Amino acid sequence: MSATINRQILLAEKPSGKLTPDHFRMVEGAIPEPKDGEVLLRVRYISLDAANRAWMQGATYRSAVEANSVMAGGGLAEVVATKSPGLAVGDIVFGDTGWQDYAAVPAKHLTKLTQVEPMTHLLSVYGVAGLTAYFGLLEIGKPKAGDTIVVSAAAGSVGSIVGQIAKIKGCRVVGIAGGKQKCDWLTSELGFDAAVDYKDGVLFKTLKAAAPDGIDVYFDNVGGDILEACLPQMKNYGRIVCCGAVSQYDGAPSPHGPRGLPGLIVVKRLVMQGFIVTDFMARRDQAVADLLSWVSSGRLKVQEDIIDGLENTPRALIGLLAGENRGKRMVRV
Amino acid sequence: MSATINRQILLAEKPSGKLTPDHFRMVEGAIPEPKDGEVLLRVRYISLDAANRAWMQGATYRSAVEANSVMAGGGLAEVVATKSPGLAVGDIVFGDTGWQDYAAVPAKHLTKLTQVEPMTHLLSVYGVAGLTAYFGLLEIGKPKAGDTIVVSAAAGSVGSIVGQIAKIKGCRVVGIAGGKQKCDWLTSELGFDAAVDYKDGVLFKTLKAAAPDGIDVYFDNVGGDILEACLPQMKNYGRIVCCGAVSQYDGAPSPHGPRGLPGLIVVKRLVMQGFIVTDFMARRDQAVADLLSWVSSGRLKVQEDIIDGLENTPRALIGLLAGENRGKRMVRV
Repeated sequence: MSATINRQILLAEKPSGKLTPDHFRMVEGAIPEPKDGEVLLRVRYISLDAANRAWMQGATYRSAVEANSVMAGGGLAEVVATKSPGLAVGDIVFGDTGWQDYAAVPAKHLTKLTQVEPMTHLLSVYGVAGLTAYFGLLEIGKPKAGDTIVVSAAAGSVGSIVGQIAKIKGCRVVGIAGGKQKCDWLTSELGFDAAVDYKDGVLFKTLKAAAPDGIDVYFDNVGGDILEACLPQMKNYGRIVCCGAVSQYDGAPSPHGPRGLPGLIVVKRLVMQGFIVTDFMARRDQAVADLLSWVSSGRLKVQEDIIDGLENTPRALIGLLAGENRGKRMVRV
Repeated sequence: MSATINRQILLAEKPSGKLTPDHFRMVEGAIPEPKDGEVLLRVRYISLDAANRAWMQGATYRSAVEANSVMAGGGLAEVVATKSPGLAVGDIVFGDTGWQDYAAVPAKHLTKLTQVEPMTHLLSVYGVAGLTAYFGLLEIGKPKAGDTIVVSAAAGSVGSIVGQIAKIKGCRVVGIAGGKQKCDWLTSELGFDAAVDYKDGVLFKTLKAAAPDGIDVYFDNVGGDILEACLPQMKNYGRIVCCGAVSQYDGAPSPHGPRGLPGLIVVKRLVMQGFIVTDFMARRDQAVADLLSWVSSGRLKVQEDIIDGLENTPRALIGLLAGENRGKRMVRV
């Protein structure tokens, strides 16, 4: 990277099917000048999230990413010039920096962070992934000690933390992940009670064996067939935390929604509830304090998957959507 | 009806597709003798409910109705002989009497009712229909004054009461029903703000016109396509009360579940919650007191659809599933 050039990765074309590197294009331009109220950011780490792909499909909780604009994405960045009284040079912030070396962003859209070591933890366990796991599980899932919790995308950034928090809360935890290696890692390293490989083709049966008394809380990161397999195994009054639907993001939308709905919701008196982590930001400090104490006591292990080079961001996202990451994936810019 | 013969309608065969009269058979037998702890009931009114059809498909919140057994169903009945200290001859009770003239039933499975005039109100507004509407709307839907409430099967036993309670609570109410006559009745007689005919083929559009600012609470009696049309029109943080899925009961199960799930639950932070009215029975007295006061003040209109003759019960259910009733359908035995 030159100190005078700003490399930017654009979404060159909105994907209609599977995302490929050809949907992106790198351009080079001048480093922007911050306007009044803005700061100039040097982006340090770009967060890769399944939701990035959903943003290309249309408006969600944010407007859609349009073709020929800088690809949107959360980033951890350092303030290198400021025209805002609230932020100083050297401050570390989180915000939607986009996929680029530098960004000029209104200070009001940024969150100033307390520095920790390693800094990357601000994007993983103390960032959106950790907070999503924390608030989604505890506020929406409301697990009680002894409950059976099932989490999908369990080896991912959110799932790996959901399962560990559930263990801290005294639950029995079953993870659903793709492949034997991830499953082994969940049980041997992260302390999950069981892990189920959805790629083995008999998910309903293996899940039944892993949670023979049924599921109290299903933390759903994926939707689709895995949600469909969990639904009939929910206990009466069970709770489904709708966190994401990664199975539906990359490619054509599923021709069918989860079969058995809403009938199973009625007869089992289930609650399915969605949430967006930003709704809980007023209580961020409490969550970070809990997460910090669990990490420092060794009860919560942080897994990060760091890829070097802005130019590798498209492939990093494509790989994430294919499930190749373990823990929080990010790009070091 | 002879005073010594007990006519019974059996489920002759479990339907695999649409329910027809051929799935039932009437038999005649002796009036049963109550055993210790039981009472002999003379059935007065049989309740017809969409759930009757669901019971034939398999276990739900109750065990399935099997072929060659008396068709199950709620009934309003008079105690004519007693071997239970808790019930006296002449008491009026509600319970699963089945489709027959007489039934010997354990007293512990029956609810003794305070008599009202007309007695049929015990099966409609003060019965399962009214209580389902009351608890489902108020406890699960949690409407606030000014909210927009949409209810499907709005001219049915539950829906017609849901909409009126929502009006009493200061909400704007849109009913979804089949056919112009029902829709006109909802707005002209029951005070709904708008009614939408799902048979017109443009439900999404007409619903959008009737609830242009979106839906706060959708009380879903039907599932299927109508649920699918409501989902994208929910406001953020909206609540979907999953009361039933009548569109899915009669015939082959839908090849697809509601498309857009769980993605729309996530991005709109929706709650979808199921319930069964029996879970709320400890608070029945409070509900009946409220319903009584609304009926006696004229704020809640009670619509009943009473068909004469036990022999007509199969056709009464088939017609209910086709949506031919307005308000609570029952058979006078």
